[in-house]
Amino acid sequence: MNITHSGRQSFRLQQPVVLTTWASVAGKKESEGPLGACFDLTSRDPYFGQKSWEKAESHLQMLAISAAAEKACLQLSDFDLILSGDLLNQCIGSSFSLRNTGVPHLGLYGACSTMAESLLMGAIAVGSGAVRRAVAMTSSHFASSERQYRFPLGYGGQRTPTAQWTVTGSGSVILEPGGKGPRVDACTVGTVVDLGIKDANNMGAAMAPAAYDTIRAHMDDLGRTEADFDFIITGDLGQLGRELLCKLAARDGYHWEDKIRDCGCMVFDNTQQDVHSGGSGCGCSAVVLCGYWLDKLKQGKLKRILFCGTGALLSPTSTQQGESIPAVCHAVSLEGGN
Amino acid sequence: MNITHSGRQSFRLQQPVVLTTWASVAGKKESEGPLGACFDLTSRDPYFGQKSWEKAESHLQMLAISAAAEKACLQLSDFDLILSGDLLNQCIGSSFSLRNTGVPHLGLYGACSTMAESLLMGAIAVGSGAVRRAVAMTSSHFASSERQYRFPLGYGGQRTPTAQWTVTGSGSVILEPGGKGPRVDACTVGTVVDLGIKDANNMGAAMAPAAYDTIRAHMDDLGRTEADFDFIITGDLGQLGRELLCKLAARDGYHWEDKIRDCGCMVFDNTQQDVHSGGSGCGCSAVVLCGYWLDKLKQGKLKRILFCGTGALLSPTSTQQGESIPAVCHAVSLEGGN
Repeated sequence: MNITHSGRQSFRLQQPVVLTTWASVAGKKESEGPLGACFDLTSRDPYFGQKSWEKAESHLQMLAISAAAEKACLQLSDFDLILSGDLLNQCIGSSFSLRNTGVPHLGLYGACSTMAESLLMGAIAVGSGAVRRAVAMTSSHFASSERQYRFPLGYGGQRTPTAQWTVTGSGSVILEPGGKGPRVDACTVGTVVDLGIKDANNMGAAMAPAAYDTIRAHMDDLGRTEADFDFIITGDLGQLGRELLCKLAARDGYHWEDKIRDCGCMVFDNTQQDVHSGGSGCGCSAVVLCGYWLDKLKQGKLKRILFCGTGALLSPTSTQQGESIPAVCHAVSLEGGN
Repeated sequence: MNITHSGRQSFRLQQPVVLTTWASVAGKKESEGPLGACFDLTSRDPYFGQKSWEKAESHLQMLAISAAAEKACLQLSDFDLILSGDLLNQCIGSSFSLRNTGVPHLGLYGACSTMAESLLMGAIAVGSGAVRRAVAMTSSHFASSERQYRFPLGYGGQRTPTAQWTVTGSGSVILEPGGKGPRVDACTVGTVVDLGIKDANNMGAAMAPAAYDTIRAHMDDLGRTEADFDFIITGDLGQLGRELLCKLAARDGYHWEDKIRDCGCMVFDNTQQDVHSGGSGCGCSAVVLCGYWLDKLKQGKLKRILFCGTGALLSPTSTQQGESIPAVCHAVSLEGGN
């Protein structure tokens, strides 16, 4: 077997799966942030030329996969499988983008952990031989998320200090059994952790315990420590969630302050862009991974990172029914390589 | 490699993955249908003892997995992975049922195709060695679906003749690399097919082309014909969708009338239970597979079936925006065995 189960929640790939090509697409606010120059495509139009924000989000995914395919000199028909998901009800961002393309599709829902989930499943699918070339992809859109999860944008609702700003963007990654590029060498599947946080405007606090749980599981299952990674990259904990993760780790004697980088803290400039606790959404970790981290790995500037997608698994209905917020984090270990 | 890609959309397992144990839980209306005696657990209470229909659906999944674990003399901690999804916004039926259980979880969204999708992904995860024991699971609930997708139940809205009745139920299957039971020997991942149907009360018509597409792909990719299967089991096309599938096949010269069995047509007695075109929902194919077909395979009464989960990937928002209904179908080939 090329893949071996390890410990409780993890598996290793004896023959690593290679991330051969990737692409990122982002919106106006993201293009004005610290990583603005890193994205393959950006647009100042929040509709991306479509008639609704939902259609714009679906179009974002098509732009991201088309950009990756073009870079790799491939057609959509060269992909055996697309693993994708998003935040919209019934994941219409993903399924509508793939209508009548003829590409096999498996839909995922892991909230903002979806980029890591799709990479993890893609690694199993390609590493096992079930498919020869897969795409891992996700998206989010500020405006489609706001009206679905919070208030109509025209209402002008005030945001709390702990709130995060949903990233408008999409990232896609092509996975193959060989070739040049960063490599997935091991993954850890998260468990659903809920410590009772009920504030839907404080998702960082809800997700930090799940992130800590999965990072610890990855290290325990695979006999690794923080020294094995240049950085541990969390999806979208935001500033508050990142602080909480470091505190949880410190309580157990781990000092990760210098290791943890959070995509939600990286994508916007909090002193200039009024995003409160940082970025969030499936697209947040997707565009930061595909716009920044994978290039650093490819260039040989990093040896290994642990990419930890974090998702708050709430819904407006669960919040209205007084439920607390379950969260999950999936981790993908990525080695540098060109 | 144990798994080999085959053709465009399919893969074979050289060492089949075994469905060692399964369980089904269903509601009152389902318990009064033709398969009422087949289910492991039924309840006359639509709330299943919970405070809301959404919490009831989440509880249904916990009942289904607990029942399967009990049959297999296992604890939840013996599972390396649970692959599950449901129809509720943000899949809260699945994620809330697994809160703080400590079981690794990957969330799926394939609408009513989710039982097949979870089996397919479980077959890759177990067949590849990434996990040792996985659970494939899904659920739906009539009342939580009606108010999310259609009208508040108290409104008493009229149902059109082509409408289907969402099944209240959950099914769970334990997958292992060896042991006794029916075996997954090959799978086909579906593509997103949309022929322009816009009537959200006629999902059978939207899904039939996807079902035909995937069944044909399975046969083409693997060099099989309808003669290789005792039955081709579709998820929830309903009576109208089943007729359309047979017509689509007949147009190409295939006569499948005697081969196709639809879980949506099996779960209710249409002459007595006023369900119009039949049952639907993720739970429909899940309870019929786990309550009926897997037992027939285990008993050696069937040699091989093709289990084809069918999903309509619409959302209320997409319908309101005038979109047509994309659909997907995933196929899992199951061999008899005890």
